[in-house]
Amino acid sequence: MNISATCACPPGRRPRASIERDARELLLDSATELFATHGVAGTTFAMIAKRAGLTPAMVHYYFKDRERLLDAVVKERLLRIISHVWDPVEPGTDAAKAIRGIAQRLLEQIEKMPWLPSLWIREILNEDGLLRERMLPHTPFDKARSLARAIARGQADGSLNTELDPLLVVSSTLGMVMLNMAATKIWAQLLHRKPLSTRTLLRHVTGLLLNGLLLNRLRQTQSPRSDASSRARNS
Amino acid sequence: MNISATCACPPGRRPRASIERDARELLLDSATELFATHGVAGTTFAMIAKRAGLTPAMVHYYFKDRERLLDAVVKERLLRIISHVWDPVEPGTDAAKAIRGIAQRLLEQIEKMPWLPSLWIREILNEDGLLRERMLPHTPFDKARSLARAIARGQADGSLNTELDPLLVVSSTLGMVMLNMAATKIWAQLLHRKPLSTRTLLRHVTGLLLNGLLLNRLRQTQSPRSDASSRARNS
Repeated sequence: MNISATCACPPGRRPRASIERDARELLLDSATELFATHGVAGTTFAMIAKRAGLTPAMVHYYFKDRERLLDAVVKERLLRIISHVWDPVEPGTDAAKAIRGIAQRLLEQIEKMPWLPSLWIREILNEDGLLRERMLPHTPFDKARSLARAIARGQADGSLNTELDPLLVVSSTLGMVMLNMAATKIWAQLLHRKPLSTRTLLRHVTGLLLNGLLLNRLRQTQSPRSDASSRARNS
Repeated sequence: MNISATCACPPGRRPRASIERDARELLLDSATELFATHGVAGTTFAMIAKRAGLTPAMVHYYFKDRERLLDAVVKERLLRIISHVWDPVEPGTDAAKAIRGIAQRLLEQIEKMPWLPSLWIREILNEDGLLRERMLPHTPFDKARSLARAIARGQADGSLNTELDPLLVVSSTLGMVMLNMAATKIWAQLLHRKPLSTRTLLRHVTGLLLNGLLLNRLRQTQSPRSDASSRARNS
């Protein structure tokens, strides 16, 4: 999708507002992807314009300056992902169900936006990542705490592993997804094997987290031994 | 420890070779820590010299250029950590015991070198991290494969969770330690609580990984240390 092709259409075919919206969205996509590959500090307006097939003047027109561009990337790209991943987690949630849901929704988002783990590792997890301070106030605290409380309840009633720190289970869930997406590329490069599919990654991450969390095997819905033979082939 | 103070001692007190070795070690420490906080690209010879209390000319004297400095950081700092963490993993190892050992040794190294997770996240895990290509050839492949094989054996004999990808268990172990060290600082900042102790982190990481990996619940107790021997027998 290149906006300059759209702009070349005969005039009057599409309302100007729609073309403008497309140009702005395209610039935001380009900026976000470049931030993931070259870092925020290593990305210029000229690079963003070039990738979108537009001019640097248009980046200035839509975003004025770097600060406002970063605000837009956070608000219109990253916060949407956070909402999508976290919104379904309700107070009083079942811990295992919530963790499986979070891992699955995050993997789905990464499938659509493969730049996400790089951006997260580089600019948020990194101690002086340039989106870190901007993102921290938007941490979905209430949701994370609902989940941590659900884990603590399970630990108190003896159904969940008491060795785990409830808040670290929350970050371990996000981290396991992001890190394993990054790691599967490294293993693929080193061992000349294909990166694992999203499906295999989801099975690994939820398998490790849920089995690690649950103390009572009867609550595990999927029988891990049922397809042992097909999995043994993968390893 | 400031080498300029050492240099100010009356001449003849210490052999010149020992002072030179100290200066070089001090410069290497400063470079490695600055790489972790400001990134390789954001660190100049002048910054390294200033942190060590020495002159930029001395950085040039000991390391000639940036490439040779990076070689020295990899060889004399990072590879030592890898050896320390991985060397005890032997072919035919018990998977659970190996994972616990790796997590414990890595946490011990981070306790001594708190810059390690930042450096790893920023310059190795990051897709265009400036130490990544230099470190990949030193991945302790044989050791990682020994562990992956141990996991696959346990999966085949029904003692280990077949949902997990053996190689991803290896990267999940390193990632869980590094990531949770980074995450505990973020939670501490957000919630105004103290970062968790190394001991709590080790319990969380090994609790999640080992409970996630092992299938026979009868072997699981509240205290994983107490029944290490029964696990060794079974996996």
